[in-house]
Amino acid sequence: MLVQKYKDMLSGKSVIRELSEFATARGQEIGYENVFDYSLGNPSVPVPQAFTDEMIHMLTDRESNALHGYSPSLGITGVREAVAASLEKRFGLPYRKEHIFMASGAAGALAHAFRLVTEPGDEILTFAPYFPEYGPYVNLTGAVLKVVPPDTESFQIHFGKFEEMLTGKVMAVLINTPNNPSGVAYSAATLRKLADLLREKSAEYGHTIYLISDEPYREIVFSGVEAPCVSAFYDDTIMCYSFSKSLSIPGERIGYVAVNPRCRDAETMVNMCGQISRGTGHNCPPSIIQLAVAKVLDQTADLSVYETNMEILYRELVDLGFTCVKPGGTFYIFPKALEEDARAFCRKALDYDLVLVPGDTFGAPGYFRMAYCIATEKVERSLKALRRFVEETYR
Amino acid sequence: MLVQKYKDMLSGKSVIRELSEFATARGQEIGYENVFDYSLGNPSVPVPQAFTDEMIHMLTDRESNALHGYSPSLGITGVREAVAASLEKRFGLPYRKEHIFMASGAAGALAHAFRLVTEPGDEILTFAPYFPEYGPYVNLTGAVLKVVPPDTESFQIHFGKFEEMLTGKVMAVLINTPNNPSGVAYSAATLRKLADLLREKSAEYGHTIYLISDEPYREIVFSGVEAPCVSAFYDDTIMCYSFSKSLSIPGERIGYVAVNPRCRDAETMVNMCGQISRGTGHNCPPSIIQLAVAKVLDQTADLSVYETNMEILYRELVDLGFTCVKPGGTFYIFPKALEEDARAFCRKALDYDLVLVPGDTFGAPGYFRMAYCIATEKVERSLKALRRFVEETYR
Repeated sequence: MLVQKYKDMLSGKSVIRELSEFATARGQEIGYENVFDYSLGNPSVPVPQAFTDEMIHMLTDRESNALHGYSPSLGITGVREAVAASLEKRFGLPYRKEHIFMASGAAGALAHAFRLVTEPGDEILTFAPYFPEYGPYVNLTGAVLKVVPPDTESFQIHFGKFEEMLTGKVMAVLINTPNNPSGVAYSAATLRKLADLLREKSAEYGHTIYLISDEPYREIVFSGVEAPCVSAFYDDTIMCYSFSKSLSIPGERIGYVAVNPRCRDAETMVNMCGQISRGTGHNCPPSIIQLAVAKVLDQTADLSVYETNMEILYRELVDLGFTCVKPGGTFYIFPKALEEDARAFCRKALDYDLVLVPGDTFGAPGYFRMAYCIATEKVERSLKALRRFVEETYR
Repeated sequence: MLVQKYKDMLSGKSVIRELSEFATARGQEIGYENVFDYSLGNPSVPVPQAFTDEMIHMLTDRESNALHGYSPSLGITGVREAVAASLEKRFGLPYRKEHIFMASGAAGALAHAFRLVTEPGDEILTFAPYFPEYGPYVNLTGAVLKVVPPDTESFQIHFGKFEEMLTGKVMAVLINTPNNPSGVAYSAATLRKLADLLREKSAEYGHTIYLISDEPYREIVFSGVEAPCVSAFYDDTIMCYSFSKSLSIPGERIGYVAVNPRCRDAETMVNMCGQISRGTGHNCPPSIIQLAVAKVLDQTADLSVYETNMEILYRELVDLGFTCVKPGGTFYIFPKALEEDARAFCRKALDYDLVLVPGDTFGAPGYFRMAYCIATEKVERSLKALRRFVEETYR
């Protein structure tokens, strides 16, 4: 018999996917260049040439069995060393290869982090607005994801509600900064308060509450914005990183788990990741991709277009009367809709070929997300449609 | 708190890994060319040039975001179509892309197959001798792996013992043909009898017993050997394939699940795989590797060296008085040890720098495995050591 829980999931439609399908279909009618598709968080800036060159260089010069051979289960040793050295230099924490587990993107890294610290029935808390895939990612491990309602003033943490929900059943807290969908980076003050509370409650409950920090947008931080290193604030932090956005290679599934060197069990935890992967069938990210990213660890794609797009959109949105927290990074912005029902708002926007995603999907009804990882030229052209939509519908 | 089951696994030492570590250490003493290391099943023949050329071609000519972008969760559509077309042509079953789910190697494919058809507590049966990773692969999903004792005459299936163990709790049967470690391919007679029994018991118990067919060695079949397509015998077959051995790219983690087109729920099952992967954090094999293998589906590395090595070893082993079933494929041979305790036998062989793996690891005590995916020249040089070992120890 087929397993019912997975069968049941098939009927659940993803709002983002439906919107993206609408955009594609509409694009076939009127030309995709005329559809202002803000639905998908797909990196749009070219992959760094150094990554491509490194791939070609290895394919040309290295012995094929060595290049494409099995990776050790924790990742290729030299790659782990290079990642640790880069993190140490960057963040000043004493990372060594023993703290690094190479994983298949942030999704793979999170799958390991959740299994490290939760048994079925344990709770993981996250904060709205949040990446909706966290639901299945957590719940399919047997743990239970609970979502703390948003602080809509700042999209920092709503500590009042958080403290209420931080019971003895919570084994981990999952954060994502800079954040998808709000674009906001948690401040040092937020992280300090969060860390203090986790230390206090860990002591009170007699078990460590781990902080799982999902950081795929770490390299997309805008000028003048403070986006401090989460691990610097809390010893028991499990950092989950992906190169998808920094190098524009989301399809190549490469990232890592970096357990804070100050975490008492760091090395054991990394070794445990190698056991967890036997059950998930993951067994290391691709060897050639591991080797290639290790050569370009301190480089990124040219990410400046995201800031350019953000500034254009933010200015226009404010000018049109939207309430909107200014993003500190990522390629998302999360304004308040102009009517209470953000789904209705987004539906009406489709008449202007504006594809926006209602905040309900992210646990924050009444707001909407725009993913501005598209050409600046298109962002500029979309402003007229946005203005017409607002003026004809809400004035 | 860290999850105890994974922590406990850290103390379990892999016999194969220990032997391989011995070989490496001994190699540093006397030169690795003098260690006859038959421990690891690591492909040794070069990657086909066509695969490398295709990778370089794409890296050079294709737009980087298209090349390295997200794959749909079931795999890249054109890749699934190409795999289906290749399977249809090869095996005469009506495969379509709807039957194909791209996975991270056979390990990834199996992780999905197990989760498709078992709930925690359900049983999966496999046959000794068997690949020891099946233990954690299955048991970490919550299902329970049970091992049917071997038919040591032929290393086909011991049907008497199988039938006893095929109770109503068994939801799937897992086979691996051609087999690691025996090298034996299941005959048409074996597969027919297996299929008949599964149909009979499925009807009796009122639920489908799925056949999960792990086929990483499908392309390594020796001349004159019959290695029939498993799916042709049983409609409810889930084929799990890996390109690791056929293309010598085990580190690139690429394979697929192919659900038999005649299986009633085939398309649903493939769609369910896309849901399962959200929980395992797997989320598609790397895009560039998917695209590259799709171009060389009907090619393999030059696998002939494995047959050459097998013939040399088999002749020598028989001449030395070993009882040994002649392999039909793979790069393994599984002779009977010259004393009851194969672990003692293998330990003594180390004095001759022969690294052999005791059959206990594979659920068949009293036998030992030789992985002859090494240079023919080295196989030939090892014969003298093998003869000295046997004559000085057992004559």
